[in-house]
Amino acid sequence: MDKLIIVKIGGNIIDDENKLSLFLKDFATIGEKKILMHGGGKLATRLAEQMNVPQQMVDGRRITDAETLKIVTMVYAGYINKNIVAQLQANDCNAIGISGADGNSILAHKRVHAAMDYGFAGDIDEVNSSFFQNLLQQNITPVLAPITHNKKGQLLNTNADTIAQETAKALSSFYDVQLIYSFEKDGVLLDVDDAGSVIKKINADYYRELKEEGKIFAGMIPKLDNAFSALNSGVKKVIIGKAEEIGKLIKGEKGTSITHD
Amino acid sequence: MDKLIIVKIGGNIIDDENKLSLFLKDFATIGEKKILMHGGGKLATRLAEQMNVPQQMVDGRRITDAETLKIVTMVYAGYINKNIVAQLQANDCNAIGISGADGNSILAHKRVHAAMDYGFAGDIDEVNSSFFQNLLQQNITPVLAPITHNKKGQLLNTNADTIAQETAKALSSFYDVQLIYSFEKDGVLLDVDDAGSVIKKINADYYRELKEEGKIFAGMIPKLDNAFSALNSGVKKVIIGKAEEIGKLIKGEKGTSITHD
Repeated sequence: MDKLIIVKIGGNIIDDENKLSLFLKDFATIGEKKILMHGGGKLATRLAEQMNVPQQMVDGRRITDAETLKIVTMVYAGYINKNIVAQLQANDCNAIGISGADGNSILAHKRVHAAMDYGFAGDIDEVNSSFFQNLLQQNITPVLAPITHNKKGQLLNTNADTIAQETAKALSSFYDVQLIYSFEKDGVLLDVDDAGSVIKKINADYYRELKEEGKIFAGMIPKLDNAFSALNSGVKKVIIGKAEEIGKLIKGEKGTSITHD
Repeated sequence: MDKLIIVKIGGNIIDDENKLSLFLKDFATIGEKKILMHGGGKLATRLAEQMNVPQQMVDGRRITDAETLKIVTMVYAGYINKNIVAQLQANDCNAIGISGADGNSILAHKRVHAAMDYGFAGDIDEVNSSFFQNLLQQNITPVLAPITHNKKGQLLNTNADTIAQETAKALSSFYDVQLIYSFEKDGVLLDVDDAGSVIKKINADYYRELKEEGKIFAGMIPKLDNAFSALNSGVKKVIIGKAEEIGKLIKGEKGTSITHD
């Protein structure tokens, strides 16, 4: 099977023009087939302020009312997505920027929650793997914005980590998938206050141990649970680390590898 | 050669949610291979007002400074493009929304003008016909926003009529191309004040005659010049008419046909 590298970049790098530009230069040089997922960063919040659209956050999640959906569609699928694509093209990486509506690539439904109305938030139903395969076969690199649709005409705001994970799972039947979550830290840390305490490798047993000993920072647990869920669905390896070190993350020289063995 | 229908819809239909939705329903039913080009409408102007970004117009053209480029990228390639795609998907038309940066589909350069700085306005250099052919072969319908790039990382604001024309020309080597310009009127009128005076058919001789007799409304002349330029570059037929009558325009039952014979 061909190797496929799926990279998710978080908001902190999108908010930093120089870091983003350096990252994209590195990403463009990856020789394997690849997909990039990006989140939103602070631009949507800033635009909402400029447009006087109040933003409601519950447990760190944005409530997506109709005006907010319009803003995230403009910022994520428009401004951020197209600027990333233009920069990748400048670095001779033939990228195509898409939302989940394009090519019906990611089908979702409006989140149903007993006590809470999240508005136009989408939970993923299906990833159109043949659409991605066709692009990858032509050496085109998909760049996914965190916007999906329900195939009834409704766009939906969808968590980029989840899109990365579901896409990795769906494509693991056809490729040897490596999923890379990049964020602001060097990897999973044994000691939150010590940037040098990166754990090189975590398998399921070690993860259980770390959790039992209370050594895993609470904020990392959902990320790691997702990583193991991806592994259990066929993804070969999940790597967590800094976007600025993408080359070294892929080679396993930096970051934290989440693996079976 | 396969038939290919290229439709350009103007701002007036984009600004009207109901009309747009009906148009997209009709467009989705077109059996031939097809491409949709859309303009921007008044949404970008409205957003610029909300964001307090002054808009400078010269001879009806928007001067695209950096802030305006950001706005049109968000509105054209984000909000409008993704909403059109989501609606086409709902109508079982497998659409993909792209800018000229995506798949390096439309290459342009920043407009050079001796006396005027148009800002980030793009003039087209090349249409990547093999990219469009690949999508069309898979029965995917490209939906193009009027944003291009220079392959050096710069996005550029580009006239949608021109994109439609250049794409039609480039693809006429591979398809039997019909180019449809839809606007607010029923077609080219003999008498601007009489909506019933639609001219059914114009060829080069008749066009010369109409111009000599001063019977063509000045505003139509650039559109018709473009239409004849497209014809002379291999496009089979250009039709000008109302988006609401797209089915009848294609069948030649409505609108004005611009043809060789």
